Amino acid sequence: MATIVDVAKLAGVTPTTVSRVINNRGYISEKTRNKVNEAMDQLGYQPNEIARSLTKQKSNTIGVIVPHISHPYFAKLISNLENEASKNGYKIILCNSKEKAEKEKQYLDMCKSNRVAGIILCSGNVESNKINTGNIPVVLLEKNFEDGKLGIQCDNYQGGKLATEHLIKSGCKRLLHFSGVIDEDMPADNREKAFIDICNENNVEYFIRKYDIDTYNEMNYYGYIKETLKEIENIDGIFASSDLIAAQVIQVCNELNIRIPQDIKLVGFDDVEIAKLTTPTITTVHQPIKEMAKLAIELIDSKYKNIEVNDQTILPIELIVRNSTLNK
Amino acid sequence: MATIVDVAKLAGVTPTTVSRVINNRGYISEKTRNKVNEAMDQLGYQPNEIARSLTKQKSNTIGVIVPHISHPYFAKLISNLENEASKNGYKIILCNSKEKAEKEKQYLDMCKSNRVAGIILCSGNVESNKINTGNIPVVLLEKNFEDGKLGIQCDNYQGGKLATEHLIKSGCKRLLHFSGVIDEDMPADNREKAFIDICNENNVEYFIRKYDIDTYNEMNYYGYIKETLKEIENIDGIFASSDLIAAQVIQVCNELNIRIPQDIKLVGFDDVEIAKLTTPTITTVHQPIKEMAKLAIELIDSKYKNIEVNDQTILPIELIVRNSTLNK
Repeated sequence: MATIVDVAKLAGVTPTTVSRVINNRGYISEKTRNKVNEAMDQLGYQPNEIARSLTKQKSNTIGVIVPHISHPYFAKLISNLENEASKNGYKIILCNSKEKAEKEKQYLDMCKSNRVAGIILCSGNVESNKINTGNIPVVLLEKNFEDGKLGIQCDNYQGGKLATEHLIKSGCKRLLHFSGVIDEDMPADNREKAFIDICNENNVEYFIRKYDIDTYNEMNYYGYIKETLKEIENIDGIFASSDLIAAQVIQVCNELNIRIPQDIKLVGFDDVEIAKLTTPTITTVHQPIKEMAKLAIELIDSKYKNIEVNDQTILPIELIVRNSTLNK
Repeated sequence: MATIVDVAKLAGVTPTTVSRVINNRGYISEKTRNKVNEAMDQLGYQPNEIARSLTKQKSNTIGVIVPHISHPYFAKLISNLENEASKNGYKIILCNSKEKAEKEKQYLDMCKSNRVAGIILCSGNVESNKINTGNIPVVLLEKNFEDGKLGIQCDNYQGGKLATEHLIKSGCKRLLHFSGVIDEDMPADNREKAFIDICNENNVEYFIRKYDIDTYNEMNYYGYIKETLKEIENIDGIFASSDLIAAQVIQVCNELNIRIPQDIKLVGFDDVEIAKLTTPTITTVHQPIKEMAKLAIELIDSKYKNIEVNDQTILPIELIVRNSTLNK
């Protein structure tokens, strides 16, 4: 790897001049600047970001810890986080915890070792109040709020409310909710709370099924959906806690000769690409993923610059009506 | 942030002892080791990875540059890359180039500044022979092979061959291929070459349509598919160069009252999750994404350890038959 001395030699200037060009400090003539830039290009020289980070005891890196990179919700979230980070001069270190506490802990340690500017934690297992991240800000994204930690959620209760009300208004009288993971305590559980409240308010019969962590980790709900639909008969409306589950509900219903929306109406959650690619397309609750990503990066950037911020924010959602709830 | 001196003070040992525990060097009693570990936990101390990287002039970070993080093919690839990297003690810096040469160049510079252990380049715009990455190994993934660069591709020609032969064997006589991006030269173009060869060998009438870079970047092919299907009549078989395109073909055909597989048989490429979630499910060419990711990390790790490797590898693919080509 070329050094600053090599660049200076090739450009015929002193290392101090090269350093000035790199750091944009002091007066440098256009001609000298061009000579130095050409020499850097020719030698493939790059300023050493590691050395800079060491001086600052902080890097312009943000650690993002998610349970599943290829889950469509997280893929979309990561894409938006990278986009916002890049706009603000940060880079993303990506960590896939597979929803395992041990891996989360390792990744948190790795982020600390690398003196990241901030951590965005979207994975649910480690109780973050047990984690000492020193002065590194942590944004809990779609995890329960905690004192002293930054937090962003979408309005899960309102999402559950809109989904359930829409099914009831569409004429459903016997509802099923595919909820979250058994024994996990997440903000997404508020979708279930709203489902129960709205069903009770409207005297609508309802059933709730949760799945185990292995089903979630494998992103394969087919067996679980099939069993449930065989066990609970005459369901006429389903609220699924993700579009991925909703898409698999469509597959299982196809196999069981249940027609959507004629026999069962279906609402998903997230509004990821899949919801537009199934037949029928899926009515769903739109999560403001872009806004959540933007805010997460802003929070870390503000902390980095010692600007005061709102610690905890709940962002609004909206219902997107597609063909899976059409009255035919 | 706590220092090694703080840890030593709290544990009641010397900084040298703390350093020995961290680096697992020299004899340390179980009791002392526990005391030091407890003090590190309590203070949230983490060894400074930046300082280590500076000493080595290399970090255990791998830069991954893709055109679109949320494209299902790249989401699956990134997930597999992170998984393999983590197994081998590397972390992933993720870069989203949006297929823009300027962003690719910036990210390559950023990777160099951060003295990454290697770069995996999956984005197509910068001619990598114009990039001087010094002694940092670059793996070109599904890009054209270049001398002196590491390269991994799937057997695109064989994939195109299997897809086209399958359509012809299923009785199709007038084929359409949704190929790649206009004016880009990619290994994926070999899918089109095979399509042409097999159609010619079998005297089958065929049409090819390419799309512009904006269509690719927005991942929205609806308008382009619709126009094509209205323009070219009586197509009875489509080979799409990705499952994402194939899934959108199904949506458009629904709208135009064209039945798949009865009126048109359809084959995709990639074998990502979507191919199992559409109605009908999509017959597709399975890319060995897991194996490609594993090999990419192995190549960088071998270069890191100065082990000789095969510079360029083409991995085998296979055809997965689903409902979009069923004879009904």
